[in-house]
Amino acid sequence: MILARKAAAEFVGTAFLVMAVVGSGIAAVRLSPNDVGLQLLENSLITGAALVALILALQPVSAAFNPVVSMVEVMLGLLPAKDGAMLIVVQILGGSLGAVLANLMFDLDAVSISTTDRTGSHLWLAEVIATLGLVVIIFGSVRAGRANNVAFAVGGYITAAYWFTSSTSFANPAVAIARMFSDTFAGISPSSVPMFIGCQILGGVLAAVLVRFLYPKSEVTLP
Amino acid sequence: MILARKAAAEFVGTAFLVMAVVGSGIAAVRLSPNDVGLQLLENSLITGAALVALILALQPVSAAFNPVVSMVEVMLGLLPAKDGAMLIVVQILGGSLGAVLANLMFDLDAVSISTTDRTGSHLWLAEVIATLGLVVIIFGSVRAGRANNVAFAVGGYITAAYWFTSSTSFANPAVAIARMFSDTFAGISPSSVPMFIGCQILGGVLAAVLVRFLYPKSEVTLP
Amino acid sequence: MILARKAAAEFVGTAFLVMAVVGSGIAAVRLSPNDVGLQLLENSLITGAALVALILALQPVSAAFNPVVSMVEVMLGLLPAKDGAMLIVVQILGGSLGAVLANLMFDLDAVSISTTDRTGSHLWLAEVIATLGLVVIIFGSVRAGRANNVAFAVGGYITAAYWFTSSTSFANPAVAIARMFSDTFAGISPSSVPMFIGCQILGGVLAAVLVRFLYPKSEVTLP
Amino acid sequence: MILARKAAAEFVGTAFLVMAVVGSGIAAVRLSPNDVGLQLLENSLITGAALVALILALQPVSAAFNPVVSMVEVMLGLLPAKDGAMLIVVQILGGSLGAVLANLMFDLDAVSISTTDRTGSHLWLAEVIATLGLVVIIFGSVRAGRANNVAFAVGGYITAAYWFTSSTSFANPAVAIARMFSDTFAGISPSSVPMFIGCQILGGVLAAVLVRFLYPKSEVTLP
Repeated sequence: MILARKAAAEFVGTAFLVMAVVGSGIAAVRLSPNDVGLQLLENSLITGAALVALILALQPVSAAFNPVVSMVEVMLGLLPAKDGAMLIVVQILGGSLGAVLANLMFDLDAVSISTTDRTGSHLWLAEVIATLGLVVIIFGSVRAGRANNVAFAVGGYITAAYWFTSSTSFANPAVAIARMFSDTFAGISPSSVPMFIGCQILGGVLAAVLVRFLYPKSEVTLP
Repeated sequence: MILARKAAAEFVGTAFLVMAVVGSGIAAVRLSPNDVGLQLLENSLITGAALVALILALQPVSAAFNPVVSMVEVMLGLLPAKDGAMLIVVQILGGSLGAVLANLMFDLDAVSISTTDRTGSHLWLAEVIATLGLVVIIFGSVRAGRANNVAFAVGGYITAAYWFTSSTSFANPAVAIARMFSDTFAGISPSSVPMFIGCQILGGVLAAVLVRFLYPKSEVTLP
Repeated sequence: MILARKAAAEFVGTAFLVMAVVGSGIAAVRLSPNDVGLQLLENSLITGAALVALILALQPVSAAFNPVVSMVEVMLGLLPAKDGAMLIVVQILGGSLGAVLANLMFDLDAVSISTTDRTGSHLWLAEVIATLGLVVIIFGSVRAGRANNVAFAVGGYITAAYWFTSSTSFANPAVAIARMFSDTFAGISPSSVPMFIGCQILGGVLAAVLVRFLYPKSEVTLP
Repeated sequence: MILARKAAAEFVGTAFLVMAVVGSGIAAVRLSPNDVGLQLLENSLITGAALVALILALQPVSAAFNPVVSMVEVMLGLLPAKDGAMLIVVQILGGSLGAVLANLMFDLDAVSISTTDRTGSHLWLAEVIATLGLVVIIFGSVRAGRANNVAFAVGGYITAAYWFTSSTSFANPAVAIARMFSDTFAGISPSSVPMFIGCQILGGVLAAVLVRFLYPKSEVTLP
């Protein structure tokens, strides 16, 4: 029963996260057609603000919204592997529904496959770094005994990472998959997705090693 | 006596909320005439910032500022139905005063009926989703035992929902009614209001069901 | 000795507050010459961000930075009248130094008297409302037993009030006086200051009455 | 072993901080070519957001990311001098790596020496004030017993100080050194760095004196 509630929270949360990413991207292009930077500012602030809200409200049930985060939870012994696999499936389904709903709210076809290629070694480097940073931010806050801060840390980090990584920091396989289904500002072509996901997993694994070194559980105390 | 204080808090809070929505909309159009996106960025950030302030200051008395939220409080047994009905009336009165004061502060007629039609099935879908999300955010935070987070969760959510829903997320019947009284950026024509309110109520009811499933009260613990 | 530390905190804090207001106004006009709305967005976000920082760091000593707030502290019995008078003088001196330093940092004359008239009944109404809201926000948070939230509530409120009041919400006599000394974006001509201060005091007194009604001290509990 | 973890946290944190500063600067110039103010708004909000995230996640290990802050920690007896010296070296190395990674993520040469001169007495005054304010903000929050607030105070302060100081508030010798290695928006020519660092150290020393006066440790209580 607790797992069903976790799955529901991941489904709803990932759907709203993708709605925020894709929907605000569509609105930004329509409303600020003359400055791509302003579009990204709108898109990044809205994504960060949505993450703060969603994590604050759903974290006590489950608020990873991200297969790499669930994977690291399994690696760190916070989640059984079987539950992790189930939540990852739910994240992908919820995220995809979010893309469909965003399309419909803006009066577009329910699904349109993105034609935006995102490829190149500098983008792949960016995805490794973006995901590494995200996972350090989350589990640093958690292992420091300040889980209540995760919402603000993730909201701030993702807003920033949209800008400081050239890939605009997807950093999330479920969101990357969902963003294939909207041929709009936030879209990514299917052929670009596998390398992004590979880089995200690599960043997550590196981060898990780093988190273990920074926060060997028994030693943490607040200054 | 406690109810009188609750009513005063809802009246003042909803008035300031509508002042923020309508007033910043007027200012945005006057000051940023060349980019509608910049106008919405200004309007959405200011609404979110005002909500953080108002909820932080008034929540210990009463800070729904929204008939759907009061309705769900009644549904969840947090508020007697009679008190809920009274607070809803007060919210509508306070919100309407807010629209009048915003008009006056910007040297406009005290009341001008909006001529902005907001209609179409994609906008109605957006209002259902926007209100559903808002109610989940609020009661998720509350039932998780983190009421102090509601201000930040609502501020972040509403800023985001202005962008990711095509309706710019009214999500509040009292604010929708008040926004009829200002024929400016944030206005809505009277004929568009009933469907908006219907969709908001539907979103609220769906959210109440979801909240009950996600947070059956006795099981909640922080991770 | 404690009073000396309070005076130092008010002096330093009000100086930095005015530097933020005046300095970011100068920078905004220089860097975003083509959109007044973007200038105000920059000015308002920076003022709010500075207030969050200054109040978080100095509140345990003293962080009113505003004669109306100190006046209400005296009215509510939180501060002896003699101490309040002294802190008000210090706020005006600190704020004025802040204007001078902002001018110098941007390579302008140390002092230039503003020629920006700000007058009219709609602006005066705005100052009453702006100050009333500010005082409710501060003392609502304090009397609710959540003093740690004041920084975020004030930061959010002032950012918003720059936009939703037509006067751009001075709401602070010390800052109004200091802003006479810089003939730049945030300036105000000396002849406009007295009415602004009168309206601010009126707003503060009305707010004190409201706060007493909303939060009769003994009854407050968090929901 | 604890020192190794502190060094790792300072290395990773300063690298991400400089990536945020330099990377978002490159993106801002590319995406918003027509408004320097919008570029600085993007750059400043992203730097502040990244600081909130990094400090929340790494503070329980070590999160100065700034040689002046480590120096003041030594002055205030919070850190042995030898450890401080070691962390300062690590901050410079981490920051420099961050500049290189930002360049690579945006498909630029790994290193390009900046040609942006930043010189003049008004800029030096700005760096003294900027660093003084930063150190007061940090140690005010810490000595008030509210270390959990440091992230928000620093994030808000730095976002603001980018705007209200004419130097755009470097306020950090490690970041100043790192910013020599990217001939982009956030760069600084090597010849301008020594005076900046001197002014930052002066600001830090003045702040340490002020903090000691404002917060003599034994007297602090929250209002």
